[in-house]
Amino acid sequence: MLLLNNHLTLTSGTAMDNTATERMAEESHRQDSANLLIFIMLLTLTILTIWLFKHRRFRFIHETGLAMIYGLLVGVILRFGVHVPQNMNNVIPSCAVNASTATLLVNVNGRFFEYILKGEVSRGNGHQVQDDEMLRKVTFDPEVFFNILLPPIIFHAGYSLKRRHFFRNIGSILTYAFVGTVISCLVIGSIMYGVVTFMKAVGQLGGDFFFTDCLLFGAIVSATDPVTVLAIFNELKVDVDLYALLFGESVLNDAVAIVLSSSIAAYQPAGDNSHSFEALAMLKSFGVFLAVFSGSFLLGVATGVMTAFISFIVKHRCYDTTALFFLMSWSTFLLAEACGFTGVVAVLFCGITQAHYTYNNLSPESQERTKQLFELLNFLAENFIFSYMGLTLFSFQSHVFNPLFIIGAFVAVFLGRAANIYPLSFLINLGRKHKIRSNFQHVMMFAGLRGAMTFALSIRDTATYARQMMFSTTLLIVFFTVWICGGGTTPMWFNTCFVSLPRVGVDSDQDSSVVLADGSQRRSTKHESAWPFRMWYNFDHNYVKPLLTHSGPPLTATMPACCGPLARCLTSPQAYENEGRLHDDDIDLILNDANASSMYADVTVRTDAFGVHGATDGSGARAAPGGPEDPDRELALGENELVIRGTRLVLPLEDPVDPGQATSPSRRHRF
Amino acid sequence: MLLLNNHLTLTSGTAMDNTATERMAEESHRQDSANLLIFIMLLTLTILTIWLFKHRRFRFIHETGLAMIYGLLVGVILRFGVHVPQNMNNVIPSCAVNASTATLLVNVNGRFFEYILKGEVSRGNGHQVQDDEMLRKVTFDPEVFFNILLPPIIFHAGYSLKRRHFFRNIGSILTYAFVGTVISCLVIGSIMYGVVTFMKAVGQLGGDFFFTDCLLFGAIVSATDPVTVLAIFNELKVDVDLYALLFGESVLNDAVAIVLSSSIAAYQPAGDNSHSFEALAMLKSFGVFLAVFSGSFLLGVATGVMTAFISFIVKHRCYDTTALFFLMSWSTFLLAEACGFTGVVAVLFCGITQAHYTYNNLSPESQERTKQLFELLNFLAENFIFSYMGLTLFSFQSHVFNPLFIIGAFVAVFLGRAANIYPLSFLINLGRKHKIRSNFQHVMMFAGLRGAMTFALSIRDTATYARQMMFSTTLLIVFFTVWICGGGTTPMWFNTCFVSLPRVGVDSDQDSSVVLADGSQRRSTKHESAWPFRMWYNFDHNYVKPLLTHSGPPLTATMPACCGPLARCLTSPQAYENEGRLHDDDIDLILNDANASSMYADVTVRTDAFGVHGATDGSGARAAPGGPEDPDRELALGENELVIRGTRLVLPLEDPVDPGQATSPSRRHRF
Repeated sequence: MLLLNNHLTLTSGTAMDNTATERMAEESHRQDSANLLIFIMLLTLTILTIWLFKHRRFRFIHETGLAMIYGLLVGVILRFGVHVPQNMNNVIPSCAVNASTATLLVNVNGRFFEYILKGEVSRGNGHQVQDDEMLRKVTFDPEVFFNILLPPIIFHAGYSLKRRHFFRNIGSILTYAFVGTVISCLVIGSIMYGVVTFMKAVGQLGGDFFFTDCLLFGAIVSATDPVTVLAIFNELKVDVDLYALLFGESVLNDAVAIVLSSSIAAYQPAGDNSHSFEALAMLKSFGVFLAVFSGSFLLGVATGVMTAFISFIVKHRCYDTTALFFLMSWSTFLLAEACGFTGVVAVLFCGITQAHYTYNNLSPESQERTKQLFELLNFLAENFIFSYMGLTLFSFQSHVFNPLFIIGAFVAVFLGRAANIYPLSFLINLGRKHKIRSNFQHVMMFAGLRGAMTFALSIRDTATYARQMMFSTTLLIVFFTVWICGGGTTPMWFNTCFVSLPRVGVDSDQDSSVVLADGSQRRSTKHESAWPFRMWYNFDHNYVKPLLTHSGPPLTATMPACCGPLARCLTSPQAYENEGRLHDDDIDLILNDANASSMYADVTVRTDAFGVHGATDGSGARAAPGGPEDPDRELALGENELVIRGTRLVLPLEDPVDPGQATSPSRRHRF
Repeated sequence: MLLLNNHLTLTSGTAMDNTATERMAEESHRQDSANLLIFIMLLTLTILTIWLFKHRRFRFIHETGLAMIYGLLVGVILRFGVHVPQNMNNVIPSCAVNASTATLLVNVNGRFFEYILKGEVSRGNGHQVQDDEMLRKVTFDPEVFFNILLPPIIFHAGYSLKRRHFFRNIGSILTYAFVGTVISCLVIGSIMYGVVTFMKAVGQLGGDFFFTDCLLFGAIVSATDPVTVLAIFNELKVDVDLYALLFGESVLNDAVAIVLSSSIAAYQPAGDNSHSFEALAMLKSFGVFLAVFSGSFLLGVATGVMTAFISFIVKHRCYDTTALFFLMSWSTFLLAEACGFTGVVAVLFCGITQAHYTYNNLSPESQERTKQLFELLNFLAENFIFSYMGLTLFSFQSHVFNPLFIIGAFVAVFLGRAANIYPLSFLINLGRKHKIRSNFQHVMMFAGLRGAMTFALSIRDTATYARQMMFSTTLLIVFFTVWICGGGTTPMWFNTCFVSLPRVGVDSDQDSSVVLADGSQRRSTKHESAWPFRMWYNFDHNYVKPLLTHSGPPLTATMPACCGPLARCLTSPQAYENEGRLHDDDIDLILNDANASSMYADVTVRTDAFGVHGATDGSGARAAPGGPEDPDRELALGENELVIRGTRLVLPLEDPVDPGQATSPSRRHRF
């Protein structure tokens, strides 16, 4: 804390002093309200226009693209249309301050005022700064994006991951997200370093631009946006597995990119000559990356599990559950930030864990409510960010648009994405039975839109010339990818170019998983996930889920016989009811032939007693529920057959399916 | 803006500078996260404890009281348990600053840092200030309460006003809220001035305390809290009309108190000798009061009507409606603040308008969603405020507890409330047919709890000695009223003391309003509201509601024949469907005998065609829906009879009801 005081005389402030200060504070508050109002109005306009477009069946742009356009318009108006009279209250006293601190105490005639550091304004003299006061006022603290707007977006992405398909493809997803992002970062960084060197040679560079800056740029633009991916692929109705691959990659991507960029920033000040390569500092950066990532991951999972446990033992009033859910997720973020980890990453894994465990403990009503709440928050935050993005193009004052750099960046981004997708797909395909086909690789290549995360990362620090140029270029990249790649025509375009993409509905997470007598389905599924994941599935399904949720098999059935009494006391009474249901969403991932037969053999009677239909017994024959007069019976059997086809449909590249079966996916909604 | 720069030399900041600043900012960010985490944890704890209490059927305290207790505990721990090592980075340079401004630009070796005014810390020298840095860090900007936490609470109160009963008693409510609050403010102010004068005489006063301060204190503690009223009276199951009276008073109360206190603050700096009485300044204050109140009122209603209009012409996706609703309500607040009005008051009237018009345009699903959203926000904000209240008792550093002042304040608050309720009830009873009985007056007297609004008003400015003493005393008053008057035993206590209170369920807003053949009900209802309100009801029901919502009679039926084409084009098709429904929530307030018969005569056939049951025709006989095989028919007729009894039950003090009819209120839920 910095304390500015040489007048330690306690002069009681006069009323006039008070008034002046109050009036000033009030004026500032009004201005803030007006600024916020601009954004609220933008959001309202966006919503109304979306409605209009929907109503008129007129969809050529994604809603985030619209939000951007409105932001752009307001930016133009503020920049060129509004002239704010110079504030006459500016006082310029002489004062030497030797360091800037987070808090500043100012002594005004014996009264202490606390000031909080908002950030560095920009280099240049004070007068220039004052001239653009109006535009600077519309500028939010970049940390707002990280602390308020990103968390709901990322949480929602984690919460809406299709868990089953996500876990089935987790090996590929992790490869793309970790190895791919690092490759992309390095490729982009190297290319940009070449560009920058060339620019320096031809005298186009107006300031320092180090290799670490290039790497940072690479990390920033390597984060692809799950939002737009979601929007496009909901239109495309692509195969759920491939969709999970793409969505999962783009979600984890963000987490990797954010930690990567903070590790690169941590590299910078390591040595005295901080911008040359140094092995020790590099190792340190790598260590920071691992520590921050795993710390955030563990923290997110831990609070997620804790919430699950609380919701397991507690039955609330309905809105309390929502409040609890919301508060616990928020505290994950805060806890991670307080510990020095990355809150956004923690929130992502917390969201995934919540979806996996806590969600099962909520009443259907609460499930609906929490989903709606997070959807709403996500919607608001997302559109706010994109509006702001549009606004920034004109309101940000230190733009550095350099044609060479911009062209270089577009090429680098393209090549970086290609260097991520194609080689890795080749490697992944070596180990995958369900291959990623080349047309889908092209889709992944072009669906790598840059969005909210890229923007938030690049606006975080715009102090130096290099960062300003990076920010301006990033803005253009986001605009381009959202408008061109994310436009409403893209799905059509994809459809015509890659017409052979397997098209299956992507709406339901709970589709198609029955343990069949012929082990072929299960075996192929098991083949896809490596053994550590299989072991984890078994453990999760048999022990963690029953412990934390009301779903899954009772512990009495899964724990060794010697732990019988413990298992009985830990098992929720609902577990016995639930266990017979076949649409437990990842049941087929976790069973192996041995315990499948033993488990279901001693369960069939019980499930029949509860009237749960469609249970299979150990011998593999489907147990028909109810008597012959059961009206659901025919349907249930029919649907089981459909499910079988559905499971095959998910793997169409493995063995060509009967074309007649391809017509039935629309009925899979029920399971 | 204040600019501190004497080093205009542009020295490029070295990496070490950068690092130090960044580390400091990061440290401050971590600290902020930790602080917020404390409150999130407190909220979580509160929720869990509420659940535990509910589960164990153990309710001796309201949830807000619990939140306070947790806050208190954390305050104690922070105050006495945590010792923060002195920050060694404190630099104390010499610097003369002559005025404090909202923004401060600091020039550190050519780099500009922007600082925002957080507020005045406290009088005293800098070292003392630094010692308590830890506690000061847990202290939120008081404006957070006004700009973030109060709006959802007040909006929710407005949104959940029982409109029908509110409008029926609007004359009495306005009398209590306006005249009563002013009386209470003046009475408390005068008593406190006496107390303060006495304290000065006996040498107990440590600083200035002017008459305006006393008046301000009166305004602050005159705001009663709707939240706790709601909680208590939901237990009591008191007559809906009396409930509306009490709840409506406590909601409008807040609005009056907030505007009143800002007018008194505006009075203070008027003259040179600002603390003496001055007629001109008084008039000016009164003018400010009227201008701010009516401005906020009009703004709130205007945006409410605009939202209704938008929602009338737009059919959204579901979450968009919620988002729109939320954004429009928020922009009301921001717009009012930007215009210099009181955002909280605008939000209140916006909420009432939304409930009256917009709510009718939403799909049942959206109605449910918006209600849940606002409930959740209200719950979070409320518990946050009450936790913070508890914390403040120990974490606030400038408490001035003066026994004389505190005792005086308790007496004054008691007498002020009495001077509000009893004389006004007497006056109101002169004009009311449905009298406010004396036992209910006692209930109103003791249900005047002080809550979030009082706290927010008193913490807003704690700069002077007088304000600090006021704040400390207010805190104690809030604690006392919430714990003692708002405790779980109060309803029981009320019940035993005032056993003759008419008890009727208060859950449904849509109860009991049928136009009957015998005009007695209607006439008695009309008697209760004065003619300006009756005129407004007619206008509202016949023209405004049909214009803005899908409910109410079609304009074709209410507008003069000459406007036929215009009316047809403005009427929503749904209006024809809706009009036959009898549970339009304020239908009985707005009809007079003449248009009742004409309206319903030409409608009956249509409603039968649509299958809406329970329509009445102009002759007053109920039209039985469907044929004799209609299974709903008996029930529908039976319920109509119930409704008739229900309507009588609402006015039990007017003419003694048949005791046999009093047993049926539980069946009124449906209407």
